[in-house]
Amino acid sequence: MYIDLSNAKTTISQALTDQAETYRKQLFSGTMENTGWVDLPWNMAGDILDRIQQTADEIAGKCRLFIVVGIGGSYLGARAVIDALNGDQPGRPHVMFAGYNMTGAHLDKVVEAMKEQATCLCVISKSGSTLEPLLAYSILKEEMFAKYGEKEAKKRIYVITGLQDNPLRQDIEKYGFSSYYIPENIGGRFSVLSIVGLLPIAVAGFNIRQLLQGAASLSMEHIVDYACTRILLQQGGKDIEVFTYFSTNLRFFGEWLKQLVGETEGKDGKGVFPACLCFSRDLHAVGQFLQQGHQIFYETMIQYKRAQADFVIPDCVGEPFAGKMLEQINRCSEAGVVKAHSEGGIPVIVVNVEQVDEYNIGQLIYFFELSEAISAMLLGVNPFDQPGVENYKMNTKRLVESL
Amino acid sequence: MYIDLSNAKTTISQALTDQAETYRKQLFSGTMENTGWVDLPWNMAGDILDRIQQTADEIAGKCRLFIVVGIGGSYLGARAVIDALNGDQPGRPHVMFAGYNMTGAHLDKVVEAMKEQATCLCVISKSGSTLEPLLAYSILKEEMFAKYGEKEAKKRIYVITGLQDNPLRQDIEKYGFSSYYIPENIGGRFSVLSIVGLLPIAVAGFNIRQLLQGAASLSMEHIVDYACTRILLQQGGKDIEVFTYFSTNLRFFGEWLKQLVGETEGKDGKGVFPACLCFSRDLHAVGQFLQQGHQIFYETMIQYKRAQADFVIPDCVGEPFAGKMLEQINRCSEAGVVKAHSEGGIPVIVVNVEQVDEYNIGQLIYFFELSEAISAMLLGVNPFDQPGVENYKMNTKRLVESL
Repeated sequence: MYIDLSNAKTTISQALTDQAETYRKQLFSGTMENTGWVDLPWNMAGDILDRIQQTADEIAGKCRLFIVVGIGGSYLGARAVIDALNGDQPGRPHVMFAGYNMTGAHLDKVVEAMKEQATCLCVISKSGSTLEPLLAYSILKEEMFAKYGEKEAKKRIYVITGLQDNPLRQDIEKYGFSSYYIPENIGGRFSVLSIVGLLPIAVAGFNIRQLLQGAASLSMEHIVDYACTRILLQQGGKDIEVFTYFSTNLRFFGEWLKQLVGETEGKDGKGVFPACLCFSRDLHAVGQFLQQGHQIFYETMIQYKRAQADFVIPDCVGEPFAGKMLEQINRCSEAGVVKAHSEGGIPVIVVNVEQVDEYNIGQLIYFFELSEAISAMLLGVNPFDQPGVENYKMNTKRLVESL
Repeated sequence: MYIDLSNAKTTISQALTDQAETYRKQLFSGTMENTGWVDLPWNMAGDILDRIQQTADEIAGKCRLFIVVGIGGSYLGARAVIDALNGDQPGRPHVMFAGYNMTGAHLDKVVEAMKEQATCLCVISKSGSTLEPLLAYSILKEEMFAKYGEKEAKKRIYVITGLQDNPLRQDIEKYGFSSYYIPENIGGRFSVLSIVGLLPIAVAGFNIRQLLQGAASLSMEHIVDYACTRILLQQGGKDIEVFTYFSTNLRFFGEWLKQLVGETEGKDGKGVFPACLCFSRDLHAVGQFLQQGHQIFYETMIQYKRAQADFVIPDCVGEPFAGKMLEQINRCSEAGVVKAHSEGGIPVIVVNVEQVDEYNIGQLIYFFELSEAISAMLLGVNPFDQPGVENYKMNTKRLVESL
């Protein structure tokens, strides 16, 4: 993995670097609240990992459909990794996500899929009381009981929640569902390398050991540089960070980044607005704006060198494309965009990995988590709270009560 | 359909309204270039519509998989409508999109799907030479020839392109593929109510007549108000328009809006940056930023009253939710968010339709097309060109030549 900051055209002072480096050390000091995620690449090893893998294989052995109910950090990380690694794997269940909305039509599709396939259900919620997943879980639990009868359904439902008393923990007691707990000091958006992300990723058939090894092997040198560059660009009037990538498989990695950035630094009237664009598609949609619209953004592009699948361009296309590989053209388009955008005055940061596999995705996750936490600290906000999501929840409850 | 602008808290002057009204009339005057789309709700009727429906039914009769190759406006509109209307319909083919990227792994999935199911292929490109769809089409055309043999494959490939000479038109001549042409005066992002959108939508099994009737029945009164409000918010420092909706089915409607706004007004250093957030999911991702982050955005929320499917909340959830309908809670969350956001100082525009069906989606499409064209004219830019997407294309070609 390497980072190219040359097209960001910022100059990082020694004082800023020192400040960021101090914050980086603070994250690793073990004295800061909610930093349990920092140690996951090393702590989630040996016995714990074996147990997760064993549960995952057990689940994979008894279903073709694995429904994961969760929202925010209990959902986006696993989906980001599974999609990035190209989704369904031979011999492993299809992982379907639910509980991240209250759209009846979406839940209906999940219930329809259940009817046709052997199913296991997993609900993930640290508080155990978040409305959207709780409602979906309750409806899907009833469907599981109806499909399998209580005795068999109990062996097919898995609960991942916090240790404190909550509706999900009560169900664990009542029905004896298999369960894992989410440590108190790991927040949702930093939880993908914990049980929260690892179980669904392992069920889907991916190598969670390599994911963690990738994270553990991350070189620390560029984290601070990226965090500092982000702050300087923001101070220079760049109010939007646009994450871009030339693979449809990285779409949910972009969504995961949006949460990581939006919830971590979007407070006290501060923070960069996170957006993600999936190229080539969005070059033919928002590309015009990027090149010639209101220049209030910078671009962070995630590149990969080796593709997961490829095709030869047929002769009928003619020169210069015929006989080349499709992803070779994709790489040229990528380089062409970096050149056009940076020449057009857009600050472009490139984060480049060898290929999109478990090891490299692990590195990317940990890189963005650490640099984002440091960015928030440089902005002077608490990276680990999200006080601004309570208002609408209270309003919702009041409105439901008045129905 | 109604629009609530009260939470945008702007005051539209008579002069601005008059200016916008002048532009609206200009769009309908028949004297302005590239405004062929304005008449589509009335022009795409009778014989033309019958012919499209007939072709669509013929396609639906001979395949289970309909692959549509296109990018930008040749793709997003049809996908937006099909997804909004809840996707796959009983007895109709699954519509799969390709050619909007150069991701080998994505094309591989399309080719795999082809192997298992009776397939028809449709390529949509006005210029007939856009790189991404041309490459995907060429590869998939070879796959079709390999699967069916040339004689049968020819009856299963459909081409929608402009009238001028181009590689696709040459293939129409060479192989005798069924074809439709895209009128010169309709640009991609305004083409969903033309053959470009209508054929895939009809193949998927939706009522294109109602889609057009909805558009034709749009009341003109709110278009100008919305366009003016957008300009005033932008002048007041709101640089991002965040489109939001409480249905996963509207996700691609959001993507379609991003292109419509980004390409129409993002030029000459102007324009609002378009983003879309799918609630509830993104309330638990970017919701924190919206409520307490850097306040440089306004929100345009698309609401619907009646849901496409619904569920009763089980008793185990307890008061006040048990026994209520899931989408009732979704509506309360929607109202709760409008209240929390507008009380938090975010300008919120609400666009509300009775339900997400063909008629109302037709209205929404036409509403946003017209108001966006007027917005661009108020900004002083040409709504119908996209000069900023040429640089990266030239770079790409040069890089491919040097491989």
